[in-house]
Amino acid sequence: MAMNVLPPGSVIGILGSGQLGRMLAIAAARLGFRTHIYSDASGPAFDVASHHTLAPYGDLDALRSWAAEVDVVTYEFENVPLDAANAAAAKTPVRPGVRALEVAQDRLTEKSFIASMGLPVAPFAAVDCEDTLREAASKIGIPAILKTRTLGYDGKGQTRILSARDLEGARAEIGGGPAILEGFVEFTAEVSVLIVRGGQSAQSVTYDIPRNTHLDGILATSTVPGPLDAAEANQAIAIARKIADALDYCGVLAVEMFHTASRGTPLVVNEIAPRVHNSGHWTLDACAVCQFENHIRAVAGWPLADPARHSDAVMTNLIGPQINDWQTLAAEPAAGLHIYGKNEARPGRKMGHITRLSPKSTS
Amino acid sequence: MAMNVLPPGSVIGILGSGQLGRMLAIAAARLGFRTHIYSDASGPAFDVASHHTLAPYGDLDALRSWAAEVDVVTYEFENVPLDAANAAAAKTPVRPGVRALEVAQDRLTEKSFIASMGLPVAPFAAVDCEDTLREAASKIGIPAILKTRTLGYDGKGQTRILSARDLEGARAEIGGGPAILEGFVEFTAEVSVLIVRGGQSAQSVTYDIPRNTHLDGILATSTVPGPLDAAEANQAIAIARKIADALDYCGVLAVEMFHTASRGTPLVVNEIAPRVHNSGHWTLDACAVCQFENHIRAVAGWPLADPARHSDAVMTNLIGPQINDWQTLAAEPAAGLHIYGKNEARPGRKMGHITRLSPKSTS
Repeated sequence: MAMNVLPPGSVIGILGSGQLGRMLAIAAARLGFRTHIYSDASGPAFDVASHHTLAPYGDLDALRSWAAEVDVVTYEFENVPLDAANAAAAKTPVRPGVRALEVAQDRLTEKSFIASMGLPVAPFAAVDCEDTLREAASKIGIPAILKTRTLGYDGKGQTRILSARDLEGARAEIGGGPAILEGFVEFTAEVSVLIVRGGQSAQSVTYDIPRNTHLDGILATSTVPGPLDAAEANQAIAIARKIADALDYCGVLAVEMFHTASRGTPLVVNEIAPRVHNSGHWTLDACAVCQFENHIRAVAGWPLADPARHSDAVMTNLIGPQINDWQTLAAEPAAGLHIYGKNEARPGRKMGHITRLSPKSTS
Repeated sequence: MAMNVLPPGSVIGILGSGQLGRMLAIAAARLGFRTHIYSDASGPAFDVASHHTLAPYGDLDALRSWAAEVDVVTYEFENVPLDAANAAAAKTPVRPGVRALEVAQDRLTEKSFIASMGLPVAPFAAVDCEDTLREAASKIGIPAILKTRTLGYDGKGQTRILSARDLEGARAEIGGGPAILEGFVEFTAEVSVLIVRGGQSAQSVTYDIPRNTHLDGILATSTVPGPLDAAEANQAIAIARKIADALDYCGVLAVEMFHTASRGTPLVVNEIAPRVHNSGHWTLDACAVCQFENHIRAVAGWPLADPARHSDAVMTNLIGPQINDWQTLAAEPAAGLHIYGKNEARPGRKMGHITRLSPKSTS
């Protein structure tokens, strides 16, 4: 089905008012679009948007009114309630779409979906009670990691099972709700594929694949070039494309993967995020067109942009009080400093990032 | 005098709502600032600013109220009425400052100021009546160019005197007001120095010097690297620095120059603009930190950023109906497309620009 191409001046509706919504709104402005944010809380995206609506995600009337005023709806977070997404979709196209939300909101659905395509994922099993937890542990083995099925992010809603004793109380630790037990993957590196799919012919393009490091469950750095050789990169891209195609995806999809020492299957999918992603923030400074603009292009039916990087880059998140170093960071040469405009530098809160550039290496 | 350093979250007040204000507001957002635009007309900057005030520049009460609500005032155009600038300055610092406006608003003051420092400018003379026009023409020679002293831009308010016959009616053609006659400069190229001055120690940095081409008096392209060799570039930078220092300037100053075949004095100052400048738009895509962010840094008392370019670049303005090619332009690889979000593509109106990147050459 041919997509409408939205001309400059059209209004992009964005669900969510955080830093991703903010950077999406700025990217939309660069192309001459106006933006209208819908959020249940005031956030930094409000400051750069043409309009905003502050209302609960459960207020379906407000959502419908908002959706009727915009030309396309997109979102900055995967936990948009499905009712909200459906209410909006009744009025205007929602891209990436409700299906991508359904899959990404529930770790069990997500893992099952990926595994069903024959793609490599960590061993996993559903956990609903103490019995299924023990069954899962004996099936998958220990060490393993117990995660809530829904609403986890940045390492929240999960606990490690390092020995059989850890099974006791593990469910309580993550709230006692529906969960998934995942086997540990021995990895040599973490990487992510940022695939942009959409436009008129459902073409797709991918950014160079960064090496990601985490600290306390939160992304710390993303570095390009990353650790994959050309053959591995092609494998990783093929995996991401298969997932994006299966979702008939429109926009930026992040596919986080483990890079392992296995010769035959060096890549194991960890999780997907149906949105622009922290591990793509380096594209703001190291590419002619960043992930945010390419997401906007996709959802607006525009040609996707060349994702080639012009520079090597190391993106470092500024978490909580790290943002207080802004004067020192601002004085660094060859660096793009991004501050999200949040009021309070709470521990663990993503306050900004800095991308340090260097001339592009040959690899 | 030490400047206050404005922390992220501070409010940058911007006079003017056009595309320069828009790109300044986006750059301010990148550093975590909020923005408040003041303009006598709704414009594309409103769409990306935290707040805006729509009121005449002559409403000094409105200006004072606005200025009292922001932490620093800057402007996107040099024709800010001096009364307006002074009213704002009574409440909060105005940067680049009222003096820069005074000098840049009147071509006669501007030329006299530059010449008084011993810097090379085209020969010029004031024209108030038919008599002074004839005197000026005999002093300067023909061909020459007659310009209004104030309010000219993009080739407006000027007429060429190619023969003595053109003197007849020339004043009427530009409105009959106070004027300046300027001698023609035989140039081999037009260039501009974008100097950023300010911060805590009134340091200054300059971007690489582009070659500029004009069409119908409007900038058509800016290209880096430009035509100057290293010695000439140093001369050009020294000229720009002398002007910026003399104005105790804070922010981005554009100094447009003619590059001539003269061995001793290859550079002649054409005009200055006390603001971010169209010939610096390529810095958005070819530098880690663009002119807009460096202007914001300067007026906020931050360290100035490294102006090094990571790529070669050709910036092409999209004037009037040229913007209608946006779909084709959006499909180009290695290009940054910028659309200003103006409603009507009137002839001569700057609607957007595209910057085509290529790997950095050695020069």
